[in-house]
Amino acid sequence: MNTTELAELAAQLRVDSVRASAAAGSGHPTSSMSAADLMAVLLAHHLRYDFERPEHPANDRFVLSKGHASPLLYAAYKAAGAVEDGELLTFRKLGSRLEGHPTPRRLPWVETATGSLGQGLPVGVGIALAGKRLDRTGYRVWVLCGDSELAEGSVWEAAEHAGYEHLDNLIAIVDVNRLGQHGPTRHGHDLDAYARRFEAFGWHAVETDGHDIEKIDQAYREAQATSGQPVVILARTLKGKGVASVEDREGMHGKPLPAPEEAIAELGGLRDLRVHVGEPPAAAALRDRTTEVVRLPRYDEGDRVATRDAFGAALAALGTARGDVVALDGEVGDSTRTEEFAKAHPERFFECYIAEQQLVACCVGMAARGWLPYASTFAAFFTRAHDFVRMASISGAGINLVGSHAGVAIGQDGPSQMGLEDLAMFRALYGSTVLYPCDANQTAHLVAAMAGLDGIRYLRTSRGATPVIYGPGEEFPVGGSKTLRAGEEDRLTVVAAGVTVPEALAAADRLAEDGIRVRVIDLYSVKPADAATLRRAAEETGCLLTVEDHHPEGGLGDAVAEVFSDGRAVPRLVRLAVRTMPGSAAPDEQLNAAGIDAAGIVDAARLLLQERAVH
Amino acid sequence: MNTTELAELAAQLRVDSVRASAAAGSGHPTSSMSAADLMAVLLAHHLRYDFERPEHPANDRFVLSKGHASPLLYAAYKAAGAVEDGELLTFRKLGSRLEGHPTPRRLPWVETATGSLGQGLPVGVGIALAGKRLDRTGYRVWVLCGDSELAEGSVWEAAEHAGYEHLDNLIAIVDVNRLGQHGPTRHGHDLDAYARRFEAFGWHAVETDGHDIEKIDQAYREAQATSGQPVVILARTLKGKGVASVEDREGMHGKPLPAPEEAIAELGGLRDLRVHVGEPPAAAALRDRTTEVVRLPRYDEGDRVATRDAFGAALAALGTARGDVVALDGEVGDSTRTEEFAKAHPERFFECYIAEQQLVACCVGMAARGWLPYASTFAAFFTRAHDFVRMASISGAGINLVGSHAGVAIGQDGPSQMGLEDLAMFRALYGSTVLYPCDANQTAHLVAAMAGLDGIRYLRTSRGATPVIYGPGEEFPVGGSKTLRAGEEDRLTVVAAGVTVPEALAAADRLAEDGIRVRVIDLYSVKPADAATLRRAAEETGCLLTVEDHHPEGGLGDAVAEVFSDGRAVPRLVRLAVRTMPGSAAPDEQLNAAGIDAAGIVDAARLLLQERAVH
Repeated sequence: MNTTELAELAAQLRVDSVRASAAAGSGHPTSSMSAADLMAVLLAHHLRYDFERPEHPANDRFVLSKGHASPLLYAAYKAAGAVEDGELLTFRKLGSRLEGHPTPRRLPWVETATGSLGQGLPVGVGIALAGKRLDRTGYRVWVLCGDSELAEGSVWEAAEHAGYEHLDNLIAIVDVNRLGQHGPTRHGHDLDAYARRFEAFGWHAVETDGHDIEKIDQAYREAQATSGQPVVILARTLKGKGVASVEDREGMHGKPLPAPEEAIAELGGLRDLRVHVGEPPAAAALRDRTTEVVRLPRYDEGDRVATRDAFGAALAALGTARGDVVALDGEVGDSTRTEEFAKAHPERFFECYIAEQQLVACCVGMAARGWLPYASTFAAFFTRAHDFVRMASISGAGINLVGSHAGVAIGQDGPSQMGLEDLAMFRALYGSTVLYPCDANQTAHLVAAMAGLDGIRYLRTSRGATPVIYGPGEEFPVGGSKTLRAGEEDRLTVVAAGVTVPEALAAADRLAEDGIRVRVIDLYSVKPADAATLRRAAEETGCLLTVEDHHPEGGLGDAVAEVFSDGRAVPRLVRLAVRTMPGSAAPDEQLNAAGIDAAGIVDAARLLLQERAVH
Repeated sequence: MNTTELAELAAQLRVDSVRASAAAGSGHPTSSMSAADLMAVLLAHHLRYDFERPEHPANDRFVLSKGHASPLLYAAYKAAGAVEDGELLTFRKLGSRLEGHPTPRRLPWVETATGSLGQGLPVGVGIALAGKRLDRTGYRVWVLCGDSELAEGSVWEAAEHAGYEHLDNLIAIVDVNRLGQHGPTRHGHDLDAYARRFEAFGWHAVETDGHDIEKIDQAYREAQATSGQPVVILARTLKGKGVASVEDREGMHGKPLPAPEEAIAELGGLRDLRVHVGEPPAAAALRDRTTEVVRLPRYDEGDRVATRDAFGAALAALGTARGDVVALDGEVGDSTRTEEFAKAHPERFFECYIAEQQLVACCVGMAARGWLPYASTFAAFFTRAHDFVRMASISGAGINLVGSHAGVAIGQDGPSQMGLEDLAMFRALYGSTVLYPCDANQTAHLVAAMAGLDGIRYLRTSRGATPVIYGPGEEFPVGGSKTLRAGEEDRLTVVAAGVTVPEALAAADRLAEDGIRVRVIDLYSVKPADAATLRRAAEETGCLLTVEDHHPEGGLGDAVAEVFSDGRAVPRLVRLAVRTMPGSAAPDEQLNAAGIDAAGIVDAARLLLQERAVH
């Protein structure tokens, strides 16, 4: 296309953005209009993408980090022939694939769900890393960012990561339209301010006029000719460009244009241009990812092994069996034990340093490219990446997150290092799986089982050694549980998981000495929970006592209660959990202070049975 | 102190760090030793702090961002005469104030809990902002950072904020010891790499040798002489400095020294130096913060008003009555309605742009200085700051967070903008309060009530207008509820909050037409929940149906279930919640698709009553 044709294409993208938003009665046309020239030139001249084969291994990857500019994206899909005009006008309507913010659940050309700002670039870094170090089919990753979102720290985590890794297959395009939602950005049209920042992080920065077709084209050429560095194109644009009544004006964010018909006329009316998007090069087949049988580590009953140790060994074994497994860590691989994987498979290990948002974003990017990521840091520090995990669940990304050092059981380090909210955080995610093993063989099995699940999978590991109570041949289906003590005289069921399982067993033994029989269930699958077994225990023992190394809300206690929210009869329930703010102390002192050790369980059980006798 | 004496003081800090960690059998002596010279010179020559009066309005503020170097901090307290040697040796023991990572819950000289890296500088920015724009007593804020934590995006959010606000009362000291937990940092001893980054964000950078007393002193002088910019001092140091067996060696993170007695000898043995820390200048009294009666906005029953509108108006009114209220927003004040406060009290409004971690960190910093912050963004985007809120709860910080645009009820924007996990996140925090009003008068009252609570207070507001169902004179105690429909023939209780309250009322009316009486409870206080009223409803109606615009885990359903986890009889429970991944659609379509509108409640109630009849 020549310059005039490209300008026409850009005008069409603007017109279609206005039309889609007008039809929806909501949306972000002005944020789309600012980037229309950038998008037109990219689509027609630089992107290499086969819309019929979104899975093509050499396709470039495009991420709309400013996800609210979805009208522009969908208008581009229409121009590329991937979406019909009729569908474009279903924008934001019930059942439409064209959501307010794009998601890969519904559209095959979307790499990752966006709409929470500052996430597209981090995920783009993950994809670019996969491209450089895993796929090696030569694709580029283009990320269209807004200027407002550069205030997010996650953008600079990503900038740091990309600069350090010399990701010259990554090109960020920043639509510097100077206006945020509420008002002007901090730096307005000061492109130099942004250039200084990116350059400091090792990027090559190109400043351009985002409404000058030829200069945009030149900027893209320069970006692709740059080697050894990621590139940022800083484009000076005007929000609402092309329609005088909204152009460069405050108060016009996230609203359909006031007079869409007039605006369309001002933009030169409807067009129906089709653009031929460049084909990706013939790609080498993806590397062999065939799966062997996983030779999991085997632990002897009675030994004492930390579940984090078993995780590390199992992950390394899984990596040996499966070529698609990758591991990532937040610079604590000696604690989480991902260092075992790093030693065995250095080419598939990614050190993300202390940057948990980027850690999760890398997972999302790699999963989008078909890899099977396992990322690990302290359970407590996954809270840093909560919004990224939330968006990953919206994407439907299949990622494995393993949080170590869960609960007060870590001991002396104190509350800042204790995962006491992680079960709540991960349970509340749509379609998530939450696993909390108590011994080494169980951990190993669950690490392998995670690989086959959908959505966000979370596994919680513990710092200290716990007794191996299961044989290596035992099976641990997700959604299952293990009943460790059971008899006809059980008067109560203790439901435990992780570090509280050995405490529950010890408590059961002590109570048995006094002739009090209690059932013990190891609920290693916290979500989904084993409703049938819990229901049976309820019917047979009448009362369930949950005990967890977590705050009382959102964890094991809530998970068990949820099972009994189906309208049928509910057993008596009591929950033991961490109800105070812990300080520093030895692990056993911590469990005792929280009342979740064997002594606490014995006391609670006695009190409960006494009360029941009274009632 | 002369140079020799300062070197002696630094040696004492090292020795005491080694001793404390040895006594504890854990801790981070090597991370303390690298920064000992920096701390010694700061303490003896530059910090102005009255340890007897930590609340002194002109005290400088010191934040140990690298919280794991707590032995150094406690050794400094000892040198300053604030802590005795005997207490120093209680480090990390049960009941000791000297936790593994410092917290203000237990120590009056600590501004904020640290230990989750990359949080000290953001909170320091909040304190420095308070110093510049609110307190104006001339204090400086000193933040001692590690180099590893500079990988956290939150550090660059803070750098951006501080640079933009020209916070020349903020001095960050980076202990560049080149070693993280697991291995070398990305940039090792390349001080220039860090200087480029900070300078790009508008800071003045000073590079120095972190073990040269005179150069450190000079760097501090230069920092204090700098005006118009925050300053970062980049100090080249060696981890474990002073003890050859650990100095600058990998694998020595977070461990007591292998031979502490020899190490102490190598460091020159025990000392008992006392340092006279400089006094703060005589300070102007804090501004008048006297409280008038709050003249809350009043809404007429039957009108339709969005709870976010009522929040904005109530916050502005609260700001008029109380001079200590400050408001902050994440660049969405036109959506959250904090713009009402910004218009009324511009001098106490802080625009934090799209940087939610910094938004919460500013709250924590300002609360540490005695201000009463209310921060707002979309409910969904508070997940971005989860780790900051978690650490704020460890600090015991009294902050108010208000999340707007909760749930599927926002409509077309789609899941990325919907708070569907926020109740779970905030409920699981220690000592938190979670409020979810359904109408404008209720919202206004709760906004005022939040001010008087301890810990993290969260209020959830809605985008769309809902009917005003309460009169302006009604009271809404935290921990209470409102029973909106009740009678002797109630066969079921619907427990709702927020947008589901009008749906529950409509459902009750429809069921009543068929002669089915149901009770309706507005559980506006989700945590703490009104156990007495729920218990009574359970006893009188036998079954509780919760209905919430949130995922099924961690929200209203779990909150109600938790009430019945005291070992007493439990009613039948059913929960309606958002169980699918929503797309774009109109608000009423969303509520309907999720099955949480009046029709969904009616259907569930009928099914439940039918089932009960059968059972």
